[in-house]
Amino acid sequence: MPLTTPRRSALSEQVIAELRKQISSGEWPVGSRIPTESELVEQLGVARNTVREAVRALAHNGMLDIRQGSGTFVVAASELAGVMHRRFADADPRHVAELRIALESSAAELAARRRTDRDLQQLDAALVRREDAWASGDAEAFVSADAAFHTAVVAASHNDVMTVLYADLGEVMRDWLRDDIGKELRPKSHMDHTRLVDAIRAGDAEAAGREAASYPFMCRPDRLSEAGDTV
Amino acid sequence: MPLTTPRRSALSEQVIAELRKQISSGEWPVGSRIPTESELVEQLGVARNTVREAVRALAHNGMLDIRQGSGTFVVAASELAGVMHRRFADADPRHVAELRIALESSAAELAARRRTDRDLQQLDAALVRREDAWASGDAEAFVSADAAFHTAVVAASHNDVMTVLYADLGEVMRDWLRDDIGKELRPKSHMDHTRLVDAIRAGDAEAAGREAASYPFMCRPDRLSEAGDTV
Repeated sequence: MPLTTPRRSALSEQVIAELRKQISSGEWPVGSRIPTESELVEQLGVARNTVREAVRALAHNGMLDIRQGSGTFVVAASELAGVMHRRFADADPRHVAELRIALESSAAELAARRRTDRDLQQLDAALVRREDAWASGDAEAFVSADAAFHTAVVAASHNDVMTVLYADLGEVMRDWLRDDIGKELRPKSHMDHTRLVDAIRAGDAEAAGREAASYPFMCRPDRLSEAGDTV
Repeated sequence: MPLTTPRRSALSEQVIAELRKQISSGEWPVGSRIPTESELVEQLGVARNTVREAVRALAHNGMLDIRQGSGTFVVAASELAGVMHRRFADADPRHVAELRIALESSAAELAARRRTDRDLQQLDAALVRREDAWASGDAEAFVSADAAFHTAVVAASHNDVMTVLYADLGEVMRDWLRDDIGKELRPKSHMDHTRLVDAIRAGDAEAAGREAASYPFMCRPDRLSEAGDTV
């Protein structure tokens, strides 16, 4: 077991797995404060040292943030998400936008080829929730609903590697969306996504890829090529 | 400092940074055995416990593998590479190939828009090395030279996020290439990459993207759509 340190006990590994499950299942969502050490000792029926070691291991992985005096918070839903969040936290937002285009447009092409009836139902539902969030005028709710819609498109690609990578890039993407959309909803942020779902439903891979690539308006390649390209 | 455990000393963090530098610089390449604990104690002038703690931390990050009885080996060049390698080690190779297409074709489009003279020189040199490796008939050398060529294309995109992600997916990609190319070089594995470099040189983003997307022959989307698509 190369990934465990010799000093760490099997019990401690079990507790790490248990805490990880609470996080990955969404039981403890990103941004939430986890129970205190004493509460965990009681809930899990293990020694305080074992709890402490497990919490520290997940903090080291970038999933938890131990804030002295205010508690321990969930900062990433998986180890990969934690590492990418740290690695790309200071990245140029245009570069994040370009990666977004690359992943979303390729996933949309694959989704048009492979979507099931269930995928289409989920895309329709995500579209409705996105419209509702828009109508509510709440920018943060719109960011979440928009991110959930795009996650559903990528999931419909039935490509597990892209789906995991996109989900785990989630926080980086959401930070980008939040910056892009801002605190107030403006008409240009809306972008009707019905055509994308229509193209996926029709099985038109080319149209789906083109639609998906046209969304990140702030950083569209045509704007980038005006701003900083050398050719 | 949420990423350090309270138990870990500042000295230990320095030693971790030092070991990490040896790895990321390529001084200790992936696959190599690092010096023994006693050698590191002598080289770094710190206590044995500090060395041990640093080695364990990097093992936990997936960068080192402690093999009882045979030494400690470098298994990934960065924390992100280590996490992705573990996460995607058992992934469907077709899904890895599709991610490869998505990243490489988008990066080739950006490279066509942004390549500098220096990028073109590096691409030309990588192309020559790839041809030389082909001519040598050594499959493993060809896998390395091919991977190096594609890494140079992605670097010419001048997108730092894509470049890091692609480099850190390196081992997953190389495993895929190795499977795809096999132990013996066959004519269909060659794929002339001159047209891709020509398109990047000409600043023709569309042609560059199309060329890059046409390479992963085993798992091209048109073959996938015959094999397992639902539409």
